[in-house]
Amino acid sequence: MPRYALMIEYDGTPFSGWQRQAEGRASVQAAVETALERLEPGLHRIAAAGRTDAGVHATGQVATCDLARDWEPTRLMGALNHHLRPSPVAVLAVVPVAETFHARFSAIERRYTFRLVQRRAPLTHERNRVWLVGHRLDIAAMREAAAFLIGPHDFTTFRSSICQAASPVKTLDEIRIEEMPCPGGVECRFHLRARSFLHNQVRSIVGTLERVGAGSWAPEAMKAALEACDRAACGPVCPPGGLYLTGVGYPADPFAA
Amino acid sequence: MPRYALMIEYDGTPFSGWQRQAEGRASVQAAVETALERLEPGLHRIAAAGRTDAGVHATGQVATCDLARDWEPTRLMGALNHHLRPSPVAVLAVVPVAETFHARFSAIERRYTFRLVQRRAPLTHERNRVWLVGHRLDIAAMREAAAFLIGPHDFTTFRSSICQAASPVKTLDEIRIEEMPCPGGVECRFHLRARSFLHNQVRSIVGTLERVGAGSWAPEAMKAALEACDRAACGPVCPPGGLYLTGVGYPADPFAA
Repeated sequence: MPRYALMIEYDGTPFSGWQRQAEGRASVQAAVETALERLEPGLHRIAAAGRTDAGVHATGQVATCDLARDWEPTRLMGALNHHLRPSPVAVLAVVPVAETFHARFSAIERRYTFRLVQRRAPLTHERNRVWLVGHRLDIAAMREAAAFLIGPHDFTTFRSSICQAASPVKTLDEIRIEEMPCPGGVECRFHLRARSFLHNQVRSIVGTLERVGAGSWAPEAMKAALEACDRAACGPVCPPGGLYLTGVGYPADPFAA
Repeated sequence: MPRYALMIEYDGTPFSGWQRQAEGRASVQAAVETALERLEPGLHRIAAAGRTDAGVHATGQVATCDLARDWEPTRLMGALNHHLRPSPVAVLAVVPVAETFHARFSAIERRYTFRLVQRRAPLTHERNRVWLVGHRLDIAAMREAAAFLIGPHDFTTFRSSICQAASPVKTLDEIRIEEMPCPGGVECRFHLRARSFLHNQVRSIVGTLERVGAGSWAPEAMKAALEACDRAACGPVCPPGGLYLTGVGYPADPFAA
């Protein structure tokens, strides 16, 4: 069966997350699988690189699907987007891939961005899209604290208690904090890059960094929290609406032009 | 009575526009006036620098209001934002101003940005926030066409038939087209700056520039359209959801720190 890689963007607000649920709110996975069923009747089960939580967004999720027919990629993309309406899910690109390619297991890098807006006024356009923080943040202190996390570490402190990963050891390749003006305040974008992440790892790290930025924690407290290897040493986990899966890396990028 | 200048941000999607209507959908003006009535009972009528149309957004609208009490600006801002909920309208800043200051008549510059996204996939997060165009655009050709519009001109071609301005002559001080990558495509931001604009002038100009970018019009056709001084010579008026009033200029900026 021909296999295709799909690059997918979605607004996570109305969804229970990427992964199909037995019941309850709709998942992004189910939305895409239902669109595939419209094209080729029968059961479709797709795999994705990142199983994002409820309310978490994606601008560069990657999933693979197997289809019976040989589809011209542009036509497949158009047909999927047609059937995805009116869900806030869009297929940005489609490419044929080898049967050995797997969106999740072939991935060697995940990239996430967390958007935080610091201002006193409530949000209008950006509701559910950024985390609103009312007080000023010390960006330099957050950068100093973030530097302690780079490299291979036991990230037990920054791991959800329901995380299913075999090991708490992960290598964080990058954590970069970008600062830019926005109407009425300042936006901070936290860019994180790793081969893979633990469940809730990005939101646990950003929530703790915010405590450093607010002055409640010294930058060195981040090092102590990491070394504690204890979930209780983590700061508050920040809300999901600011988090975006922005891209996935593979040994050979299937979407490279 | 103490007078205050308010800097206001709003998502224009659910509104009939800035201006209070006799009936029909709610206006942004009415939302702000209703919040003011909660603070000080009685009739409030506020003036704004730009009377944006239905579906048009603002990140830097300016309005003035007169209140009976002397309000501490930060408290006034917080109280207004409290009473504006859950409308997608937020007061970003409040400053006391002289009684001679008028949000509309004192203004000497309006700044608008129009966001266009060029990609094949439908929108998810950015629905009603950008104009989606499916075909490629020639940015250099649009820039060449836009240059014909700089300076003082009779803009009758780019003026709505219901425009109430006394004269069709306006001076366009800047029209700058910024290009940036976005998920699945390219975003073009058209930045326009003038003392004042005619009704529908920005959307008429951007809609015509899009025809140049698409290759349907030569850049020189923009010059001919302008010189025709005829509404029928205009290209299509583009949709309102991509347009943002981003700022207003005054001889002395009341919001300068």
